Amino acid sequence: MTTSALRIIPLGGLGEIGRNMMLLEYGDDMIAVDVGLMFPEEEMLGVDLVIPDFTYLRENPGKLRAVFLTHGHEDHVGALPYFFREFNVPVYSTKLTDGLIRVKLNEHRLLQGAQLHVVEPGEVTKAGVFEVEFFTVAHSIPDACGLIIRTPLGPVVHTGDFKLDHTPVMDQHTDLIRLAQVGAEGCLLLMADSTYAEQEGYTPSEQLVGEALRNILVNTTGRVIIATFASLISRVQQVIDAAVFTGRKVFVTGRSMIDNVAMARELGYLNAPDGVLVGVEQMRNTPPAKLVVITTGSQGEPTSALTRMANGDHRHITIAKGDTIVLSATAIPGNEQAVYRNVDNLFRLGADVLYNRVSNIHVRGHASREELKIIQGLLQPEYFVPIHGEYRHLVVHARLAESVGVPEGNAFVLTDGDVLEIDEEAAQISGRVSASYVYVDGLGIGDVDQHLLRDRAHLSTDGVVVVIVAVDKQTGRLIRPPEILSRGFMDLEGNEALLDRSRGIVTKALGGGSHIAEFSDINARIRDALSKFLYDETRRRPMVLTVTVEV
Amino acid sequence: MTTSALRIIPLGGLGEIGRNMMLLEYGDDMIAVDVGLMFPEEEMLGVDLVIPDFTYLRENPGKLRAVFLTHGHEDHVGALPYFFREFNVPVYSTKLTDGLIRVKLNEHRLLQGAQLHVVEPGEVTKAGVFEVEFFTVAHSIPDACGLIIRTPLGPVVHTGDFKLDHTPVMDQHTDLIRLAQVGAEGCLLLMADSTYAEQEGYTPSEQLVGEALRNILVNTTGRVIIATFASLISRVQQVIDAAVFTGRKVFVTGRSMIDNVAMARELGYLNAPDGVLVGVEQMRNTPPAKLVVITTGSQGEPTSALTRMANGDHRHITIAKGDTIVLSATAIPGNEQAVYRNVDNLFRLGADVLYNRVSNIHVRGHASREELKIIQGLLQPEYFVPIHGEYRHLVVHARLAESVGVPEGNAFVLTDGDVLEIDEEAAQISGRVSASYVYVDGLGIGDVDQHLLRDRAHLSTDGVVVVIVAVDKQTGRLIRPPEILSRGFMDLEGNEALLDRSRGIVTKALGGGSHIAEFSDINARIRDALSKFLYDETRRRPMVLTVTVEV
Repeated sequence: MTTSALRIIPLGGLGEIGRNMMLLEYGDDMIAVDVGLMFPEEEMLGVDLVIPDFTYLRENPGKLRAVFLTHGHEDHVGALPYFFREFNVPVYSTKLTDGLIRVKLNEHRLLQGAQLHVVEPGEVTKAGVFEVEFFTVAHSIPDACGLIIRTPLGPVVHTGDFKLDHTPVMDQHTDLIRLAQVGAEGCLLLMADSTYAEQEGYTPSEQLVGEALRNILVNTTGRVIIATFASLISRVQQVIDAAVFTGRKVFVTGRSMIDNVAMARELGYLNAPDGVLVGVEQMRNTPPAKLVVITTGSQGEPTSALTRMANGDHRHITIAKGDTIVLSATAIPGNEQAVYRNVDNLFRLGADVLYNRVSNIHVRGHASREELKIIQGLLQPEYFVPIHGEYRHLVVHARLAESVGVPEGNAFVLTDGDVLEIDEEAAQISGRVSASYVYVDGLGIGDVDQHLLRDRAHLSTDGVVVVIVAVDKQTGRLIRPPEILSRGFMDLEGNEALLDRSRGIVTKALGGGSHIAEFSDINARIRDALSKFLYDETRRRPMVLTVTVEV
Repeated sequence: MTTSALRIIPLGGLGEIGRNMMLLEYGDDMIAVDVGLMFPEEEMLGVDLVIPDFTYLRENPGKLRAVFLTHGHEDHVGALPYFFREFNVPVYSTKLTDGLIRVKLNEHRLLQGAQLHVVEPGEVTKAGVFEVEFFTVAHSIPDACGLIIRTPLGPVVHTGDFKLDHTPVMDQHTDLIRLAQVGAEGCLLLMADSTYAEQEGYTPSEQLVGEALRNILVNTTGRVIIATFASLISRVQQVIDAAVFTGRKVFVTGRSMIDNVAMARELGYLNAPDGVLVGVEQMRNTPPAKLVVITTGSQGEPTSALTRMANGDHRHITIAKGDTIVLSATAIPGNEQAVYRNVDNLFRLGADVLYNRVSNIHVRGHASREELKIIQGLLQPEYFVPIHGEYRHLVVHARLAESVGVPEGNAFVLTDGDVLEIDEEAAQISGRVSASYVYVDGLGIGDVDQHLLRDRAHLSTDGVVVVIVAVDKQTGRLIRPPEILSRGFMDLEGNEALLDRSRGIVTKALGGGSHIAEFSDINARIRDALSKFLYDETRRRPMVLTVTVEV
C-alpha cells in the first residue's frame, strides 16, 4: 500500500440493493459513509436482515475517524445499532437523520455515550486528513444530502441517494451550484447513485403526485385511505395539504407512520393546521367523505396496518364498498406478491384500489439517465465509481459516464470488498477486503452461514424424516422396530404401507439387526438407504436424520 | 339448477395466473376449454406445479363431452397428463397445439387411446348441445385461437390469450371480421383475456422486435446469444431471418428449444434455408461475428442453457468479452431475481447484455386496454366475464367493459369455483364448486396440503431440533442424558454451553427424571419447555420434534 494513496473500499451496497457502507482511507485515517442494512433476499431463509461486514474495521483498530450519514433510510443507517456494539466514533448527519437514528439507538439501548453530531449543509467537518461538507439533494426523505469530501489528492463527491427535482415539495433541491463549483475546481472522483441508471429520461417531480392526490380527494365521495412509506414525510405533507384543501380530516395509523409523523412534527418537518389530524374517536364520528387515512403497509408487510385492513382484521378500520385505497408507492423488488395480494383482497372487500399500474400516484426518489448525465456534466470527474445498485446497474452507469466524458478506463465497476487505490498518477483495483453478507437472525449476528441456509432450503423443499433405532450395545442388534417420524415431507404417518416398508429398509440397512458396526457408519447407512428408497417411491428428497440409541 | 340454463364454471385461471380451465354446462352436457398448469408461487414450498381441481368432473361422471384447447402454452395445456389419468374424452385443437400435446402425452405414456383431433379455424365441432368453432388470434405462439361456442341461449365467445397485431410475423391476425359477424348476430357472453387489462394503450407488434433484433445483428461485431421462450416460434423465426440477412449461422441450444425447433420445422412452422442451422462442430469453427445462438433460459431457470452459460458451466459455450447476450423476454412475476442474477453474472464474465429495461427487444402477447375496447365494440356482448388474470386484473377489466357498453351489473367478476348461471331472463352467481389448488410434488398429486406447507415454511425459517429421550419403561426415569440434534437452526452442536442447558431443560421437563407420565404428555412437555427456552435464548423458533424411547 502506498501511504500517499487514497483508498476507496465499499463494504456493502455495490452488487446488491441495501446495506450501503463506503470507506475512504488515506494513510492512518479512515472515514465511513453510511452504515445501512439490507432486507434478506428470497433464498436467505429465515434471515431477518443483512448488515455490512466490519472485519476490515476490526483489523484496523483506531483508524476510523468518523461516520457520515447521507440520509435516514434504513439501507443507509439501519446497521448502526450493530456497528455501535463494537465501535464508538463521532457520527455526523443532518437534523432529521439524527432524529431518526436517535430513536433507533434508543430502542437498542445504545444511545448513551454515542457521539452524535448534527451538521448543516455547507458546514465543513474535519476527520483526520479528510474535510467533509454536506450538500442538499432531492430524495424521498427530507434532509437528504450528498457529501463533498476533500482529500489530499482532491475533492471526492458522494451523491448519496438523489434525483433532480426542480419543484420539490419541501423545498429541498439538489444543490447544482455547489456541484458546479466543485467541478470548476476539479473533481477527483465522483461516486453516484446507480439505482435508476437503466431508466431513460427524467424522474418526475414530487409535485405531480401532489396534484394526483388532490384530484383523487376532490373527485372521490367516500373515504380515502393512502398507504406510503413511513419515512416519505413529503408525501405525508402532500396528503395533509390535499386534505386541508378538500376539508377532510386526517387519521394516521400504523406504528412507524404514527411515530414518524410525531417526530417530523416535533422537528418542524411537517405542518398540519390544528384540528386536521384526528384520533380514533373523532375519526369514527367523521363522515367518510370528510376523511383521509394515512397508513403504513405499502409494501404488503404482513403485520402492517394496510395488510390488516385487507385481511379484515384492523382494529379501527373496516374496508367496505365506497372506500378508495391509494397505494402511493411502488413495490420494491421481492415484495410484489405481498403488495398485489393486498390489492386483490381490498378489491374483494368491495373497495376501489388505485395503484401504480393504473394511476400516477407515486414517483421515485432516484435519478434517471438524463439526470445522471447532468451530474457528470457539472462535475466532470477524473475518476468515476457507480454506487448503490446491483451489478448490472453499476455496469450500465459506468458506460453512461464514459459516454459523457469520463476518460475510458477511469470508470471503475467495484463490488463489495474491492479496494480502489488512487494516487497522483493513476487509479487501480489493488486488492480485496472481507465483505461477506453478515446475517442477523433473532439474536444471532453472523452465525447463520451458507451451510445453515442450505439446510433450511433443503428442509423447505421436502421436509424432514427422523429415524430412531434402539440397538443393544453388546450385540448391535435392534431391540425394537425402528421409529420413523416426518414433518413437511408427506403424510407418512398416515401411509402405513410406506411406513412399514421404510422400517424394513432401515432394518435391512442395519444388516438385518444382527450386525455390529460403528454407530456413525450405521447412521450413514440408514440415511443413504432410506433416502434412496423414499426418492424412488415419491420423487421427493426429504432431509433424513438418524439417531441410534445404544441400550 | 334450472335445466334450461347455461352454467359457466371456472376451475382455474381466475384469481391467479395459470392453470386455465373453464367449464360450460347446459343440462347434461359439459365442455371444457383448456386444462392448464400453474407454476408454484413463493409460499408453495417444494411444490413442482399446480393443476385445476377435477372434483366437479368426478361428481358428474359422463357429462363431459369434449375438451377444446385454445393454444399450446403450459398454462393452457400443461395439466392434460393429469387430466388424462382420470378422464378420456375427445380433445380438439389446431395443428401446432396438437403436436405439442402429443409430445407431452407421449412422455407421460398417455398417448395411446387418447382421442386427439386436429381442427381448422372456421370448422364447427359438435359436443352435446354445444357447437364450437375456432377463430384465429394473434398471440406469442403460432396456431393460437379463440372459440365461438354456440349454446341454446346464443353464442359465447372465449378469446383465449390474444392481442391485436396488424403486422404479425407468421401472418396470424386476430380474426376481427369473424368477431364482428358474431357481434351482428348478437353475442350472449364474452369471456376475454385480462392479463394486460391494467396496461394503457396498445401492445406493440411482433414486427418491432424483428427490426430490433436485425439491428443488433447488423451492429454487433461479436457473437450474439439470444434467449427467449421455447414456444415463441415466431421469435425464433425472426432470429433466423435476421441471421440469414446478416450472413450468420444459427446454433440452437437448450433441450426444449431444440425439441420445439425440430417439431416446428417438421410441421412447417419454421423456415430455415439449408445450412443456416449448424451443429456443435460447425459452431466451433464459425467465427463469432458469423454466429447467432438461440437458447432457453430467459426466465433464469436453474438448469437452463443460459443459466449454465452465466455460471460458466455450459458444455459448448464459454461467455467472454465481445459476446452480446439478448434477453428477448420479460421476467414473469416471481422470476425476477433469477433473471437478474443471470444478467449480473453475464456482465461479470465481460459480456454485453441487452435486456428489457435497456432495450426494446420483447413485446408481450396479450392485449392492452385499447385493444380490449375494440373487442368489446365488435361483439357488444350482453354479459361479460373477464378471464385469465389475478383478481385485480378481472376487476379492472370488468370496469373497462362497463365503461364501453356492457350493461351495468352484467359484467361478472368470477373466481375459481364460482358458478355463473345464465337463462333467458338474467344471469347470476348461483353457487360454488370445489376449485382448490391441487399441488403436484414429485409423484404425489394432491397429497400436499396447507398443513404440510405450513410445516415446510416453519422448517425453512428456523430449522428443526430433534430431542431423543430414553426412559425406563418401569419407572419413567431417564436412563441416559437426552440427545439433541439440529439442522438449519444454528450450530447447536458447536455451542456446548447452550446444548448443556437445553439438556437440563429437557431433563427438568421430565420431572427431574423420576416421574412417570404418559408419553404423549411427556413429548408435549419437552417440546413446550425447549421451544420456550430456545426462543428466549436466540429469538428463533425452530420446529422441535421429540421422541421418547421406552426401554
